[in-house]
Amino acid sequence: MCLMPSSDKKRALLPVSKARQRILDALEPTSSTTIPLSQALGRFLADDIPARLTLPPHDVSAMDGYAVRAADVATCPAELIRVGESAAGHPWPGHLESGQAVRIFTGAYVPDGADTIVIQENVDAAQEADNTPITVHQGAAKGRFIRPAGLDISAGDMALAKGTCLSARSIGLATAAGATSATVSVPPRIGILSTGDELVAAGKTPGPGQIISSNAAFLTAFVKSYGAEAVDLGIIKDRPGAVFDAVTAAENLQLVVTTGGASVGSHDHIPSDLAAGALDFWKIAMRPGKPLIWGKIGDTPLLGLPGNPVSTAVCALVFLAPAICKLGGGTPQHYVFSAPLTTDMPENDQRQDYIRATLTTNANGQTQIRPAPRQDSSMMATLAHANAFIVRPPFDPPKAAGDHVDVLPMPRLF
Amino acid sequence: MCLMPSSDKKRALLPVSKARQRILDALEPTSSTTIPLSQALGRFLADDIPARLTLPPHDVSAMDGYAVRAADVATCPAELIRVGESAAGHPWPGHLESGQAVRIFTGAYVPDGADTIVIQENVDAAQEADNTPITVHQGAAKGRFIRPAGLDISAGDMALAKGTCLSARSIGLATAAGATSATVSVPPRIGILSTGDELVAAGKTPGPGQIISSNAAFLTAFVKSYGAEAVDLGIIKDRPGAVFDAVTAAENLQLVVTTGGASVGSHDHIPSDLAAGALDFWKIAMRPGKPLIWGKIGDTPLLGLPGNPVSTAVCALVFLAPAICKLGGGTPQHYVFSAPLTTDMPENDQRQDYIRATLTTNANGQTQIRPAPRQDSSMMATLAHANAFIVRPPFDPPKAAGDHVDVLPMPRLF
Repeated sequence: MCLMPSSDKKRALLPVSKARQRILDALEPTSSTTIPLSQALGRFLADDIPARLTLPPHDVSAMDGYAVRAADVATCPAELIRVGESAAGHPWPGHLESGQAVRIFTGAYVPDGADTIVIQENVDAAQEADNTPITVHQGAAKGRFIRPAGLDISAGDMALAKGTCLSARSIGLATAAGATSATVSVPPRIGILSTGDELVAAGKTPGPGQIISSNAAFLTAFVKSYGAEAVDLGIIKDRPGAVFDAVTAAENLQLVVTTGGASVGSHDHIPSDLAAGALDFWKIAMRPGKPLIWGKIGDTPLLGLPGNPVSTAVCALVFLAPAICKLGGGTPQHYVFSAPLTTDMPENDQRQDYIRATLTTNANGQTQIRPAPRQDSSMMATLAHANAFIVRPPFDPPKAAGDHVDVLPMPRLF
Repeated sequence: MCLMPSSDKKRALLPVSKARQRILDALEPTSSTTIPLSQALGRFLADDIPARLTLPPHDVSAMDGYAVRAADVATCPAELIRVGESAAGHPWPGHLESGQAVRIFTGAYVPDGADTIVIQENVDAAQEADNTPITVHQGAAKGRFIRPAGLDISAGDMALAKGTCLSARSIGLATAAGATSATVSVPPRIGILSTGDELVAAGKTPGPGQIISSNAAFLTAFVKSYGAEAVDLGIIKDRPGAVFDAVTAAENLQLVVTTGGASVGSHDHIPSDLAAGALDFWKIAMRPGKPLIWGKIGDTPLLGLPGNPVSTAVCALVFLAPAICKLGGGTPQHYVFSAPLTTDMPENDQRQDYIRATLTTNANGQTQIRPAPRQDSSMMATLAHANAFIVRPPFDPPKAAGDHVDVLPMPRLF
């Protein structure tokens, strides 16, 4: 009565990390294109960006004060003559001699001949005028408060490596280093296909036995939030061959994601649609999300997620987000953090558990984590109102309130 | 020689949390608009979204198996007659009597008269056909594997509260609950103004003493990554009144962010531009980022960030991101996590320190955090290559390798 081949029945559940690695190993980055850096937020670099400029371009002051010779202020108080001013954008063109000081501001070029900066708090100046005396009350060692040329980056260095996700801060660096464009991976096109006789499209009124296809809405937004292009392949019925036909008809997709139809019920046809040589695995040691499919239809990779909305979402975060990153040419990173529990938790079983939870701040300003009391994988409201997952490894022992657990914060747009 | 009023010289540094709260208190959400839910990713709800539908709409099965009466399987093995099938989208219309079983699949309606689900693993069935016998080997208590109607949400309940950031998962919930549109805050328009005689626009070749204005590129991308609209107000020179004039000339901005000109040097004019009654504070107990301005020019709130790129970025994350959230009608949340250090760190001084660092995973799969060896606030490359901040509170005692510190992961697009 079960459609799964008997050999699969005994197969051990695949660990989450191995499943993720198998998916990533099978994906190749998309082609590349060159675009203005100002339009490249969230895209992945398909080529290194070298620095065209040296930053800072010259030794500059890190503080407001006076550029002097360290030897002149070795004994304080020391009286020097202010001979000029170096401000950001207005270098002082002269050569500083012994006994002289140049008024200097943060970011300004350090004049030739000067080798240290005395901060203004350590100086008395009768007036802000050249050819007037200043008194230095506390000296500074050679090089103090000087940012040497190239401290940040030097022309010819690699500013950003191929595979970098262009964040705001990396766009800032590339801009400062003289780049105006970036060669990036073309956003992958991800087909989204919902399966299930019970599904009606958003905006329709469900009849008896029907529900609205919300997984497609979730996945479309999710895929967009990772900078990829979501291609709506609609809703298909629970019949053998339907997924095969829909994927075969679609064009130019780097990945198809399905929801539902992944389990072992008589109405779950995706495993059999893929079984002609292209099914990789479909039982993962995780909760929610045990039935997961990875395979190919023609040349198109297919990731089959479970139909329960929370399972779909967790699997999207754990498998689809890194897959999009890899298709973009990036290197997926995965970090969990640590936070203390607000409550006890029982021992975990053999599946890696992703528990919807809420980060809170206690009276001392410490971050704590509170698991939602009920974790049924159909409960979307619990997911929408959570802001993190507690991740429990297989066979994690019981935990008491105050014990630290692994925490996976939900991305803002997840 | 210092332009700051002498009373300010002695003023204690303002703690980060107080500075953030003052900023948030002064901002009001923008106006609202109603848009299709499918276009609302990242927007903030200006009104609650109520559930129009109950989820699940009826008692449904959480597993593949057989719907039966618990009393009929109290003693096993028990033989029952399969009288029909209930699949997702295809409810069985009859009333289940004692001695009967209905084949059922995940998500399908539980037939009237049935009160539990026996999973298929506990059943032997000669064939998948109605009017054939099945043998149940292990019974199930009343209600087992049944998701009661309304388990997730009930019609009339609030699905999502005003202020929610519309993430993929909340769009999924709202879609499932019957919503097709959302009333959201209009994205705030944030003016970005760079100050400094040394700055040239991206794409130009810097002359002697000049550098490319990269803070504007960073801030534009940053503001976009938080769903707000970036309005380029260009680069202005270091002269008194320039900021005042530029902000006064701009229209319909909910906030202006400046970079540079915020310190106490003779070339830093923003404090004096704002001093006519509208300057709030400008010395914060944080590093980088001590000189920070909060005030108003006319009716336009102004956030003045320091000019060093790393200071700009940290202040954007700590102050501007929550400000955008508040302008959008959201409730900013701020959580730090905990991770062990890879190396020793000395005692901290009176300023809250944001230390660029890299999350790594050790051989046991544990997340660790490694501070970058040099933290000069001009070093953009260190920022671009980091993926988290270590946050050290004022006067944090020395830490040894392995000690836990507070970690603020960098958002993906930061």
